[in-house]
Amino acid sequence: MAFEFRVLHQQGKARTGRLATPHGEVPTPLFMPVGTQATVKGLSNRELVEIGSRIVLANTYHLLLRPGPERVARLGGLHGFTGYDGPWLTDSGGFQVMSLGHRRVISEEGVAFSSHLNGDRILLTPERSIAVQEQLGADIVMAFDECPPFPSERAYLKRSLERTLRWLERSLAAKTRSDQALFGITQGGVEPDLRRTSTLETIRFDLPGYAIGGLAVGEPKEAMVPVVDLSTDLLPADRPRYLMGVGHPEDLVAGVALGVDLFDCVYPTRTGRFGYALVDEGRLNLGSARHKDDPAPIDAACDCYTCRNHSRAYLTHLVRTEELLGLRLLSLHNLRYLHRLMERARAAIEAGTYGDFARGFAERRWPEGA
Amino acid sequence: MAFEFRVLHQQGKARTGRLATPHGEVPTPLFMPVGTQATVKGLSNRELVEIGSRIVLANTYHLLLRPGPERVARLGGLHGFTGYDGPWLTDSGGFQVMSLGHRRVISEEGVAFSSHLNGDRILLTPERSIAVQEQLGADIVMAFDECPPFPSERAYLKRSLERTLRWLERSLAAKTRSDQALFGITQGGVEPDLRRTSTLETIRFDLPGYAIGGLAVGEPKEAMVPVVDLSTDLLPADRPRYLMGVGHPEDLVAGVALGVDLFDCVYPTRTGRFGYALVDEGRLNLGSARHKDDPAPIDAACDCYTCRNHSRAYLTHLVRTEELLGLRLLSLHNLRYLHRLMERARAAIEAGTYGDFARGFAERRWPEGA
Ligand SMILES: [Zn+2]
Ligand SMILES: [Zn+2]
Repeated sequence: MAFEFRVLHQQGKARTGRLATPHGEVPTPLFMPVGTQATVKGLSNRELVEIGSRIVLANTYHLLLRPGPERVARLGGLHGFTGYDGPWLTDSGGFQVMSLGHRRVISEEGVAFSSHLNGDRILLTPERSIAVQEQLGADIVMAFDECPPFPSERAYLKRSLERTLRWLERSLAAKTRSDQALFGITQGGVEPDLRRTSTLETIRFDLPGYAIGGLAVGEPKEAMVPVVDLSTDLLPADRPRYLMGVGHPEDLVAGVALGVDLFDCVYPTRTGRFGYALVDEGRLNLGSARHKDDPAPIDAACDCYTCRNHSRAYLTHLVRTEELLGLRLLSLHNLRYLHRLMERARAAIEAGTYGDFARGFAERRWPEGA
Repeated sequence: MAFEFRVLHQQGKARTGRLATPHGEVPTPLFMPVGTQATVKGLSNRELVEIGSRIVLANTYHLLLRPGPERVARLGGLHGFTGYDGPWLTDSGGFQVMSLGHRRVISEEGVAFSSHLNGDRILLTPERSIAVQEQLGADIVMAFDECPPFPSERAYLKRSLERTLRWLERSLAAKTRSDQALFGITQGGVEPDLRRTSTLETIRFDLPGYAIGGLAVGEPKEAMVPVVDLSTDLLPADRPRYLMGVGHPEDLVAGVALGVDLFDCVYPTRTGRFGYALVDEGRLNLGSARHKDDPAPIDAACDCYTCRNHSRAYLTHLVRTEELLGLRLLSLHNLRYLHRLMERARAAIEAGTYGDFARGFAERRWPEGA
C-alpha cells in the first residue's frame, strides 16, 4: 500500500514526520483545511496549493446529501470531481449526524436521522459510512464513531466509547478498498480512565493512524491538554495522530508539543468570514473602524497573497461593505497563517528549539502586563 | 497629457483602437468590468489581470458613502487603495443617485438624496461629483449627468438633456487635475431628434471621449440599435465611444459593429452569482439539475481557470450548495467570456471579417430551426 508514516525528528513529545499517501507525501505536523462540501469555503485549488495546503478534509455527511456519493464516484472521486488531486481525508459522518441531523435516533445499528435539507430519513451505519467514503475515494477515511457532546454523563461516555469500538470493528470489516487508510477514533470525553480504555482498545486494531475524537466539543480549554497528553502517551509512536476539530493557533502549538501530527478545523475560514485575521498576537477585527486608515498589511511577515497585495484599510472596506473578496482574502490569510505556524513548528522541532518557539508564541499571544 | 486615443483598423463602422492612459494602454473595443465598491465582485486583482481585464470601473456613489473619497485619496487613490494599478474609470454618481438614493430631489444645482445606508442627507452636484472623482483618482472620469428612466415623457427627456449639458459645462469648470480625462455623456432617451441634439451639443466641448448614456435602462432591445447608430454617426471618429451599462454579448457584438469602443455592465458577475455561465449559444444554468453529471467544462474553447480546471458537474454542485467558490468561478468565466468576445471582435476587424464574425455569432446564438 502507498500509505506510510515515518517520524523524522523528535524533541520531547513533539515530532516531525512524513506521511505518504497515494496522492502525495505530506509533512507533519500539519493543519488540514476543511472542504465541507468538497470546497474549502471561498478558495480555489490553485490557492490551496499556493498557501501550502497538503491534504484537504471533506465531510461525508454533506456529500452524502449533495451531490451524492455515487455521483462523486462516477466523476472520479473527490480528486476527479473537484480537480484537487492532492491527498483527501473524509470524516465518517458521525460527528455531523450528531450535530446537524434532525430527529436522530442512535441505536447499535447506527444513527437514523432526517436530512437538514429535505427531511429525508437516512440511516448511517459503520457499513454505510465506509461504503460512502469508498465512493468518495479519499486517501484517508475515518471509522464511524459516536461523538458525545460536552458535557455528557459518565455512563453515556462509557457506553458510547464501547459502541465506537464495536463500530470500528464493523467499519474495518466493511472496508474493501486497499488504497485507503482507515483511522480509528478514540472517545471517552475528558475522563482520563475512559480515554485510556478507549485508546488502549482502539490501538489493538493496529491501524495506520489514530484520531483523538470527542474534544473541541465545548469542554473548557484547560481540559483538553491532559486528555491529549494521556492519549499521545498511549498511542503508538510510529502512527500519525490526528486531533480532530482543533484549529485555534494556541491549541495547535500545544498539540504539537504533545506529539500530535494532524489537525483540522473550520475556524480559519469561518473566522475569516466574520472579518477576523489571525496573527501571532491573536485576531485582528477588520470589521472594526480601527483599521479603516491603516495602510499596513495584516502581517508584514506573512507571505500570502493578501498580505503581499492589500492593506488593512482595504480589507476593512471589503469587510464593512460585505464584499465577497473580503471573505476570500481573509480566509486565504488565515489558512496560510496556520500552515505557516506548522512550518515554523516543524523548523523548530528540527532545530531542537520547539520549547523556545512555544514560549515565544505564548509571549506574543499573552504579553506580560497586557 | 498621457491620455490619447488612436483608431488602428476600421471595417465599416467597426473599428479597433488603442487608448493610452496614465496607468497603461488599453485595446478597443473592450468590455470594462464593474468594481462597484472598488472590487469586482468576488475576483482578485491577479485574476482580473489573468482574464484580460484592462480597465476597471468604480462607482462614485458607493465610494462616496463608503469608505469616503478623502480616505481613498489618503490611501493612494483607487490604484493605491485597491492595489489594482491598471487604468480605472469612475462614473459620476448620477445614475446611481437616480436609482439608489432615497427621497431624491433633482434641481438645477444637483441631486439631493438620502444615503441608502444610514439616511444621511447628501447633495451631489457636478462640482461635488468631480471633486470626489478627483479624490478617487481614476484615469477616466465622467461628467455629472441626469439619466432619465425608461419610459420618460418627451418633455422630461428634453429638459434633462439640456440640464445634462449645463452640468457638463460645470463639471468641466470644476475639473482641476490634468491627469484625468473627462468624458461627456449624451442623453435624449430613444428619441432620435433629442439624441441628435444632445450629441451635437456635447461634442462641441471637444472632449477626450464620449459616452452614450440613458440606454440599457429598460427600453426594448430593438430601440437601442438605431440610437447607437445615430450617435456613432455624429460622434467624432478620433475619440473613444463608451456605451454605458451594456454587457449582454449580443449587444456588444452589435455595438462594436456600430463603432462603439467601450462597454461596462454588472451583468457577467451578477448572472454568475445567479448560477449562469455565458457561452456563445446563450447561457448555461448551472443551478439546474441538467448538468449534475456532466464532466465537460462550461466551454472547451475557453481558456479561463474555471474551464481549464472544473466540470459543469462540479460547478453545478457548488451553485446548488451555494458555495462561494461557485460564484467566483462563474464570475471569472463570464468576464473572461466577454473579454474573449472582444478579443475575437478585434481580430475579426483587423482581418476585415467582422461581418462573418457577427453572423457566425448570431447563428450560434439563434440557430435556424431552434
Ligand atoms: Zn497573510
Ligand atoms: Zn471559461
